[in-house]
Amino acid sequence: MERHDMGTRRIPDTTIRRLPAYLRALTLAGHDRVTSEVLGQLAGYTPEQVRKDLAYFGAFGTRGVGYDALSLTKEIRHILQLDLGVRAVVIGAGRLGTALVRHTDESSRDVAIAAVVDINPAVIGRQLDHLTVEPLDRLEELVRERDIGMGIIAVPPQGAQAVLDRLVNVGVRAILSFAPKALVVTDPTVFVQQIDLTLEMQALSYFVGTSQRSGSS
Amino acid sequence: MERHDMGTRRIPDTTIRRLPAYLRALTLAGHDRVTSEVLGQLAGYTPEQVRKDLAYFGAFGTRGVGYDALSLTKEIRHILQLDLGVRAVVIGAGRLGTALVRHTDESSRDVAIAAVVDINPAVIGRQLDHLTVEPLDRLEELVRERDIGMGIIAVPPQGAQAVLDRLVNVGVRAILSFAPKALVVTDPTVFVQQIDLTLEMQALSYFVGTSQRSGSS
Repeated sequence: MERHDMGTRRIPDTTIRRLPAYLRALTLAGHDRVTSEVLGQLAGYTPEQVRKDLAYFGAFGTRGVGYDALSLTKEIRHILQLDLGVRAVVIGAGRLGTALVRHTDESSRDVAIAAVVDINPAVIGRQLDHLTVEPLDRLEELVRERDIGMGIIAVPPQGAQAVLDRLVNVGVRAILSFAPKALVVTDPTVFVQQIDLTLEMQALSYFVGTSQRSGSS
Repeated sequence: MERHDMGTRRIPDTTIRRLPAYLRALTLAGHDRVTSEVLGQLAGYTPEQVRKDLAYFGAFGTRGVGYDALSLTKEIRHILQLDLGVRAVVIGAGRLGTALVRHTDESSRDVAIAAVVDINPAVIGRQLDHLTVEPLDRLEELVRERDIGMGIIAVPPQGAQAVLDRLVNVGVRAILSFAPKALVVTDPTVFVQQIDLTLEMQALSYFVGTSQRSGSS
């Protein structure tokens, strides 16, 4: 099958990152035909942005009529390769890792958590929904055995880079990291998305009004 | 005190969002003087980006010597208003909300979770670290009583917009939402950062190699 990120990589990453929101908007719209205005409103982007993004893969709405919802949904799912499904491993079965496993199981049909590992003997062997927490040592083995294509890092900062390197070495190309640390990847075929909750909150602090401050420091 | 986002708003939001990473990099560097190369490497940005961002607030490194780490740290903390501290309310004491409360308590000295609310009677009254889960009805009251300046939304999609509107109405200007739904804010003085884990994973699916697919659908 055609891989849109291979060779030419015509679709910009920024567009790719908006496609899931359009997918959700299509479901919410619930109509056979949907305009860029409605899609934009439901996805949180401007109609112009929607039209520009969708044009990248040849989806053109008809003026005043809009896009065919069913074929657009199929096309986006195909581009994101959601139609193929993906198995993920969660590294770190602490509070965040546990919440992520359960959250993903509940909210995503396309990404299946297929393994969860931890380094802490007190946590290894514990049951987490349908999974047993496995030792970190088994990471490479589990990735190979269970055809895992995505890694979700939820370990403390000091262990994150080593985990990332191991995932890359065993062939995982899509990685989501919640570790509060900037991770380095030199392999251009690997995509790492970092979500650092502490940094997000610190940045948000800028937007808090001066009237609502704890004044504790 | 000077508010950098009032009136002129000279510093772009994109720069603001990188400042916390520089702050962490300064701590990691652990030297009196630090170059843009070192800061960039530790923060995950190019030295050019670092220099451009820091120039916005008049911080200029000396060629070959770098920035004064202590004064730069103080300046960034001042711009982000971290020196004033901020109190946050978490709305939704489910799996994600609970993990967020504990994660923030452990990892952030600058943002204090001052209240957690939920709509579910089975959860209200439960102890979460140093906090008792309060009823959602008390949201406005708690924001006022406890000088809360930040809202963290961790509720199911159908309730998220109503919670956001209530936060905005009671004066909260900085909001972080984990609800899997695009939220609408018309007030330009409100900043909403949305982290949608399901969308992040769907976008990541694009980067998974074809060799590692579950083939389950």
